[in-house]
Amino acid sequence: MSVTAPAGFRAGGAWIGIKAGGALDAAFVGSADGEPVVAAAVFATTDSPAAPIEVSRAHLAGSGRRVRGVVLTSGNANAATGEAGRAAARRLLEAAAHAFGGRAEDYLIAQTGLIGISFPIDAALAGFGALTASVGVDERSAETAARAIMTTDTHPKTALVEGDGFRVGGLAKGAAMIAPQMATMLAVITTDAAVEAERLDAALRAAVETTFNRITIDGCSSTNDTVVALASGRGRSPGEEFEEAVREVCAQLAHQIVADAEGGSRVGVVRVLEARDEDEALLIARQIANSLLVKASLLGGDPYWGRVLAEVGAARRGVDPSGVRIWYQGMLVAEGGLEARGGWSANEHEELTRRMAQPEVDLAVALGRGSASATVLTSDIGHGYLEENRRTS
Amino acid sequence: MSVTAPAGFRAGGAWIGIKAGGALDAAFVGSADGEPVVAAAVFATTDSPAAPIEVSRAHLAGSGRRVRGVVLTSGNANAATGEAGRAAARRLLEAAAHAFGGRAEDYLIAQTGLIGISFPIDAALAGFGALTASVGVDERSAETAARAIMTTDTHPKTALVEGDGFRVGGLAKGAAMIAPQMATMLAVITTDAAVEAERLDAALRAAVETTFNRITIDGCSSTNDTVVALASGRGRSPGEEFEEAVREVCAQLAHQIVADAEGGSRVGVVRVLEARDEDEALLIARQIANSLLVKASLLGGDPYWGRVLAEVGAARRGVDPSGVRIWYQGMLVAEGGLEARGGWSANEHEELTRRMAQPEVDLAVALGRGSASATVLTSDIGHGYLEENRRTS
Repeated sequence: MSVTAPAGFRAGGAWIGIKAGGALDAAFVGSADGEPVVAAAVFATTDSPAAPIEVSRAHLAGSGRRVRGVVLTSGNANAATGEAGRAAARRLLEAAAHAFGGRAEDYLIAQTGLIGISFPIDAALAGFGALTASVGVDERSAETAARAIMTTDTHPKTALVEGDGFRVGGLAKGAAMIAPQMATMLAVITTDAAVEAERLDAALRAAVETTFNRITIDGCSSTNDTVVALASGRGRSPGEEFEEAVREVCAQLAHQIVADAEGGSRVGVVRVLEARDEDEALLIARQIANSLLVKASLLGGDPYWGRVLAEVGAARRGVDPSGVRIWYQGMLVAEGGLEARGGWSANEHEELTRRMAQPEVDLAVALGRGSASATVLTSDIGHGYLEENRRTS
Repeated sequence: MSVTAPAGFRAGGAWIGIKAGGALDAAFVGSADGEPVVAAAVFATTDSPAAPIEVSRAHLAGSGRRVRGVVLTSGNANAATGEAGRAAARRLLEAAAHAFGGRAEDYLIAQTGLIGISFPIDAALAGFGALTASVGVDERSAETAARAIMTTDTHPKTALVEGDGFRVGGLAKGAAMIAPQMATMLAVITTDAAVEAERLDAALRAAVETTFNRITIDGCSSTNDTVVALASGRGRSPGEEFEEAVREVCAQLAHQIVADAEGGSRVGVVRVLEARDEDEALLIARQIANSLLVKASLLGGDPYWGRVLAEVGAARRGVDPSGVRIWYQGMLVAEGGLEARGGWSANEHEELTRRMAQPEVDLAVALGRGSASATVLTSDIGHGYLEENRRTS
């Protein structure tokens, strides 16, 4: 259950000719009746935005934040493709307008895949009819859409939260290039809540900040990150629980993205506690979460707290190591900048080893400086990541 | 030929009982006659400095920048070991003073290895005589010293530059945790040039800034980085070539460190050109050099310029991608933010593939914004890195 669960939406997915192997490579999420709905979007913060981001930004601004749908494609990022890339993105949206109504400017586009390769627009336009034909309001159509945006994801990512008189659904793709500033992840959130564009935008931005922007896989930022939210207004005007529901859907999708990290096998939940303020907590949590050595320890299930303390120091926030405590899986491993308890009994060591073998590892670091905290999700870096990324062809 | 080639120095290396396997684990570099010489040092910039850094800083300041020698150990970083760690470091230097003359305060100490494990001071003191006995002024003694500080290094790293009437020699260890702020690398530079402490300090700092601080292996900073320079004054008072010789020795050692990166197979020379100023060039060069995706491409010998352009954008310096050109091994692969020449002939593609197979890859990125440039050396990340770092035991 995801983007078609809220009332007023349809979705679909098909192979339109982008991926050479014939795997699903295009998705659509839009209003069920083809009419414009309230929209908001957050894009990658980069000086090298891909063509779809440039086109979507212009369309969102030009449409008064009301759009009829979003086209998503996978297999070619249409990034570093210049004016030809922007023209290709616009032509895809003309095809969408032809199929679903309105003008190209009423649609947004999000794309993911390899950078710097001409987008095969002729093939994609020739195959676009398959996408049109795939669209429906049922659950299966939404799942097909979630599958069609996958690149090296191993399974589709969806979420649904039920509010009082409204629903919020979502789908996403992740894999690699997931860093503080979102990275190649695409997500579409739909809701039938009756909210204005401004409230939807604020809810989306706040949710992204504490969910998609707090996951890291390889520290690399993407040219294509896009999260779109659409509100059909078919349901009730919601209370404060709306913002929480949007955040919860984003949090579920973000967690799924880290858990399915390219070549990864384990999720690390890095929690920094007792910081002076949230900025400090977040900065140090990111420093730890992005550390290749911490990630390598996570791969091995090794509670090597010394590297964690080294990253706290490398963050250069003036943290006194003698005030730091570190827990792995709830077990205190370091205190006062030293190994906790001056060594472990064989039983304790066995217990910690057992807990570290879990697919999710909780790493808590208390700085002893204040009461602010922040959490960042990370993944290990595995051999699969290297194999996946060593060659593009 | 390294630290004993300049007149007035002796060195040695031995197993004193730190490494369980019996491999060399301690080195000494000091004045040949046991008298103090002019000294300078640069330490890791971290809030969690290891005990040897705290002790060395105090000794250098307290000695008027004149020391009799440096003790270096490998196998245990003596980091996150608190007051017991500092006491252990001081006791090692008391043993050095007993063996080579003067007081403990006349010596510096540098240590590398695992973090957060009690330093085995009793074993090390019991075995210290082996280090004393190993010391000599010959070339072999210096090479033994270079071997004794190795951790996951596969070979010792040494350098020598001959000036007009003086020499500058050096030894170093590297491996992993090599990041902008030096990382677990230890180096000792010796010279017989007649220079004051202030000049030695300035020459060392300038050299470190453009050599050891411009290499990156895994983006992780260490708790233990130390570069010490000693000047015996036996030679001539040098001209400006002295600063260049110090820089050259540091550059040679830095290059050797990247070429012997833990689990790495290829050096990437990341050169950013046509930046507005050097800070901008350096920031973008580091962004590219630290990118895990760029490193994965380097592992595969894949000239994936799209990732390079993505990192230029992710650096958020406002660089217009349409002004960027990118070369791999001297071949222009991207121009105007697009694939250069709109595709390659089979011959050109074969030529580029052949060039990418080299053990050193030159990656040049021209921003089209000015005339400043900066170079950062990086390595690929290989499967060996993950295997080496997934578990400490």
